[in-house]
Amino acid sequence: MSEADSLDQLRDRLREFARQRNWERYHTPKNLTTALAGEAGELAAVLQWATPEESIDPYRAELEEEIGDVLIYLVRLCDVAGIDPVVAANAKVDRNAERFPGRELGPRG
Amino acid sequence: MSEADSLDQLRDRLREFARQRNWERYHTPKNLTTALAGEAGELAAVLQWATPEESIDPYRAELEEEIGDVLIYLVRLCDVAGIDPVVAANAKVDRNAERFPGRELGPRG
Amino acid sequence: MSEADSLDQLRDRLREFARQRNWERYHTPKNLTTALAGEAGELAAVLQWATPEESIDPYRAELEEEIGDVLIYLVRLCDVAGIDPVVAANAKVDRNAERFPGRELGPRG
Amino acid sequence: MSEADSLDQLRDRLREFARQRNWERYHTPKNLTTALAGEAGELAAVLQWATPEESIDPYRAELEEEIGDVLIYLVRLCDVAGIDPVVAANAKVDRNAERFPGRELGPRG
Repeated sequence: MSEADSLDQLRDRLREFARQRNWERYHTPKNLTTALAGEAGELAAVLQWATPEESIDPYRAELEEEIGDVLIYLVRLCDVAGIDPVVAANAKVDRNAERFPGRELGPRG
Repeated sequence: MSEADSLDQLRDRLREFARQRNWERYHTPKNLTTALAGEAGELAAVLQWATPEESIDPYRAELEEEIGDVLIYLVRLCDVAGIDPVVAANAKVDRNAERFPGRELGPRG
Repeated sequence: MSEADSLDQLRDRLREFARQRNWERYHTPKNLTTALAGEAGELAAVLQWATPEESIDPYRAELEEEIGDVLIYLVRLCDVAGIDPVVAANAKVDRNAERFPGRELGPRG
Repeated sequence: MSEADSLDQLRDRLREFARQRNWERYHTPKNLTTALAGEAGELAAVLQWATPEESIDPYRAELEEEIGDVLIYLVRLCDVAGIDPVVAANAKVDRNAERFPGRELGPRG
């Protein structure tokens, strides 16, 4: 994350948050990927009974909360692991466009 | 996402990617949260057998790939749902700092 | 599930539970796999900050709760989808033993 | 798991499988809950783009494979952690019926 943008600011904020509470020892890549999976599961669960037709408005606050949790762990994981998530995402989109047109970001066949 | 920063650019790129392939109909919030949970599970699985002591270097390429997938679905979900993930994350950090000091981003007790 | 055993009894109990509450319409395979992913995420989150050395005793009650949730959704999903989970698991162990010795249920390399 | 039934047999089979390959050291509760979350994510991903109306028949083989993986890790986790999954599930159904009628296995409100 080389530009000073919104993700960089969040990264710095989370770094300080963990430092202040002496939590760095819990923030190993392994623990953080697990925490992220937990939050992503909770995010999916928000809409688990929703039908495709209904509006997501009643779910908006919950979605925001869980999306926030997912991004928090993703940014913290990337900081600890030394990975730039946006570079990683763009590299994946490049591959999707060339090797798996439609496979990575949509249905197969 | 009001600033023109790296997440905005990724968002626009994914919007175009889906439009070109006529995939918008698959990108409902419900489907996207499910896809995100799937990728987050795959990300956690990268380190599932790793010990806390070992280096993550042998896993780096896989971690980057899955992190890319997670961010792709997160950004696409937020675009479709009209949610700003960084605003959501910062709001959650605010709450973490005030209401659950240490609870949301670390161990309990 | 051809034998009258503990999973069969749980299956029948869940069938009746859903029928009594008129929930069958929510229990589509798609919804149930999503609910299952949510609970599996919550289960992993129980131990997300735990070190490998510490006892799981303090976590036992939470683990039981989430394991219960995961099995509930797995059994309900299998009933609705017409899949026998034990037959599926044994078939996978067969494949693991023949094709991926050590790959499916352990580390690679 | 006090009765000799299908889950007991699977449990014993997985115990032997791990022992033969000297994998017990990887099968810690923490690792197994993470592996389970990974497989549950893959299971949800099978139907991530499916519409509620379409048949699951084209997905059946994949669903069976991932359901098998989920049950494998659930049974192995329970064996290692000393938890009976069916007892846990039934206890949860008891609580669902008394405390959260409809809350645990369906939509809220």
